[in-house]
Amino acid sequence: MGSVLVLQSSRPPVGEGVEVFFRPRGVAVVGASRVPGKVGYTVLRNLKSMYQGPVYPVNPRAREILGLPAYPSLLEVPDPVDLAVVAVPARAVPRVVEEAGRRGLRGVVVLSAGFREVGPAGAELEKRLVETARRYGLRLVGPNCIGVYSPSTGVNATFFDPERQGLPGPGPIAFISQSGALGAAVLDWAEARGLGVSRFVSVGNKADVDEADLLAFLRRDPETRSIALYIEGVEDGRRLRRALEETTPVKPVVALKAGRSEAGARAAASHTGSLAGSYQVYQAVFRQTGVVPARSPEEMFDLALALALQPPMRGDRVAVITVGGGSGVMASDELSELGLQVPELSERTQARLRRVLLPIASPRNPVDVTGSAVDEHMVESLRVVLESGEADAVLLIPYFNLSGITGELPEKIAEVIRENPGIPVVASVTGGARAWSIARRLEQVAGVPVYPSEARAARALWALRVYGRWLERLGAG
Amino acid sequence: MGSVLVLQSSRPPVGEGVEVFFRPRGVAVVGASRVPGKVGYTVLRNLKSMYQGPVYPVNPRAREILGLPAYPSLLEVPDPVDLAVVAVPARAVPRVVEEAGRRGLRGVVVLSAGFREVGPAGAELEKRLVETARRYGLRLVGPNCIGVYSPSTGVNATFFDPERQGLPGPGPIAFISQSGALGAAVLDWAEARGLGVSRFVSVGNKADVDEADLLAFLRRDPETRSIALYIEGVEDGRRLRRALEETTPVKPVVALKAGRSEAGARAAASHTGSLAGSYQVYQAVFRQTGVVPARSPEEMFDLALALALQPPMRGDRVAVITVGGGSGVMASDELSELGLQVPELSERTQARLRRVLLPIASPRNPVDVTGSAVDEHMVESLRVVLESGEADAVLLIPYFNLSGITGELPEKIAEVIRENPGIPVVASVTGGARAWSIARRLEQVAGVPVYPSEARAARALWALRVYGRWLERLGAG
Repeated sequence: MGSVLVLQSSRPPVGEGVEVFFRPRGVAVVGASRVPGKVGYTVLRNLKSMYQGPVYPVNPRAREILGLPAYPSLLEVPDPVDLAVVAVPARAVPRVVEEAGRRGLRGVVVLSAGFREVGPAGAELEKRLVETARRYGLRLVGPNCIGVYSPSTGVNATFFDPERQGLPGPGPIAFISQSGALGAAVLDWAEARGLGVSRFVSVGNKADVDEADLLAFLRRDPETRSIALYIEGVEDGRRLRRALEETTPVKPVVALKAGRSEAGARAAASHTGSLAGSYQVYQAVFRQTGVVPARSPEEMFDLALALALQPPMRGDRVAVITVGGGSGVMASDELSELGLQVPELSERTQARLRRVLLPIASPRNPVDVTGSAVDEHMVESLRVVLESGEADAVLLIPYFNLSGITGELPEKIAEVIRENPGIPVVASVTGGARAWSIARRLEQVAGVPVYPSEARAARALWALRVYGRWLERLGAG
Repeated sequence: MGSVLVLQSSRPPVGEGVEVFFRPRGVAVVGASRVPGKVGYTVLRNLKSMYQGPVYPVNPRAREILGLPAYPSLLEVPDPVDLAVVAVPARAVPRVVEEAGRRGLRGVVVLSAGFREVGPAGAELEKRLVETARRYGLRLVGPNCIGVYSPSTGVNATFFDPERQGLPGPGPIAFISQSGALGAAVLDWAEARGLGVSRFVSVGNKADVDEADLLAFLRRDPETRSIALYIEGVEDGRRLRRALEETTPVKPVVALKAGRSEAGARAAASHTGSLAGSYQVYQAVFRQTGVVPARSPEEMFDLALALALQPPMRGDRVAVITVGGGSGVMASDELSELGLQVPELSERTQARLRRVLLPIASPRNPVDVTGSAVDEHMVESLRVVLESGEADAVLLIPYFNLSGITGELPEKIAEVIRENPGIPVVASVTGGARAWSIARRLEQVAGVPVYPSEARAARALWALRVYGRWLERLGAG
């Protein structure tokens, strides 16, 4: 195999050929297994249950798996096929990649572990994978990853156990994770939260395809409206920086860089084997490239959701419309601490609000419609505020457990927003199951992202302002 | 009624007679209504459906409501009765309180609004209520509140609509809220979250019973293990301070003071009519009295739960045991930023861990059992760490979506903790419905509070450390 090293090709242009992972014309599973619980079984079952194109199990010791005819090697798989998902022991992977290249495939997802993360011998094996892939113009995701998931195209090239792991449906957020287990847990959470994703990629060791490649694809991907990145460390900082620079003018990017403390950086080094790099350096890069920083996976999705559903904030002024006075106080606190303003509304706007509110309500800002309010008090306040020109964003705080606020509020809010577009609106809802089922509808019919606390809603507005300022700076430059 | 002012009695000793709100011997509902949707209907129905003792509707125009015989006034209600819940218009309330006093009741909960919060005339009316109550030795909760809830004794003296509002079952946290709507929404959330409460009081205008009275009761209440306070403003700061000083040596208190920013303070002033006071002053009082400060209702319950279920932390060292490396990194970040340590474990402890872990696992701190782990890797790591004497607390991060971690983990963890008591253990779980149903069991069988993010679990440990330091300081003093 020494000749392979000589024939080594250079790295393909950023993003080239990455599309195959999301829109393959046929997928082979190498290492497909008949044994439930095995990775090669689960990944085959996942693909079979979602993917509309042909799925080919590859296993030299089987004629049929899960009702599909099996093939002894990739070389014998019929057309159409351009993607292979690989779940064989590490030492067997180089030969599989070689065969994928000879068979004319365009992409391989290597789930197998046992490469760079286990030491020098593994690193050597990984180097061979990459060289083989490049020689054939194949793109490679992994190794040591949990796969690729693209709900709209039915690509579930993961070994997620559907009985244990919730999978989000299609949605506007693309999610790239350097940690597989964390990525899976976050998807499980996202599904329960009712969030959808456009594409999910567990990049693993990033031997070939990395964040920069995926950003290049995602910024042109019509299904993706915002991009969430979980990063522990990157080898080529300039490459990532360039990709971010080219992405944020087109689409918002939220990034979570783990390892911001000394203890965290030490843990990251021990986890991925790669140097985590200074957190401050990453934060500077994010600032300079218009990336919105997140501090936790939950926050990463919170912010990505707001950026996917709402326009950026073009100024600092927030109007708060609340059913509960206490929530208005807390929202004001949170917004102020994030550098946003909750200015008193003008006399003229307060007078207009008084005409649509109950006498006990407060027309200042927060606009406190009070616990005695009915839907129309919220809806008409929203209309007045959106028309006033005095708010760059609105934070709605309905209480769906009160008797005056009904399940029809989402549709009514959607209508007012349709009539007054361009100003971002988010909501905060404290409550149980019934409150959340109405809140989900507020997201669906009105595109208003809903958060379970004033703090998280305020942070979402902050993200819209950070991105808005970035776009202003680009426009001015 | 001028003579009433002359007969005015002084304020009763702090906490005196407050028990009647939680353990009444019979409850009358004044203003009981046959009309669904009315406050006087809902509160009667709520009491009837939960309370084991006698419930008496009072309404001069009804003979029977909801199958219960109705009485024209409190004076005619038979024994046993010592509590009245009042839902009549504000101007009629003074006479009701007078009759409650003459009838020999010990407590009234005034749900009615229209008192101090509406201006000088309302304030005068409120003054009369208090004077009447004091003359008869009656304690009064409210007015302008949403009531009292004590699940273990069946007291649901609220007008929560059970179709809209979740109600938590019995549990170890007492919750006192100055905001009614916020209190209700938080209870709705708590029920969905699976948290229980011992007592809930919406204090409203605090004309008579205030936080100090309730703290005096709660610190001796065997059902209450931690106390959560939502405060917008208090009139007598020294009174609250003294009550806190006498409570925290006995039981942990978490307090959320709204209005920490200028905008928030302005909103609070507009909401409660009372001056919010400087946030810094409150924070100083909390620090000086060992109160754990919270920044949101969610956080208030997060911290109260940890303080109710786990012993205080006696040092700063946290051992993190995680299935996902990325989560270990984030936990380390969060803990470090809160002033806690994630120190590397000793060579000896690392060696012991290596014997119980997979070869690819990391025995440093975070202890990364890896995504290939099974239950025993977590359980035995926990045992080694608890026995090592090198951790003042443990943060567990199981991933219930992985195939090696089973639904039996909670019982196994409970056993190890039983054998090694005294060191607080909390957990962080990212995931969907299945993961959370196992997580809830971890709370129930092992008493390990579970949080949906590393950040919130870290904050819970921080609260245990704040309270632990306070107890150390008291012990040293």
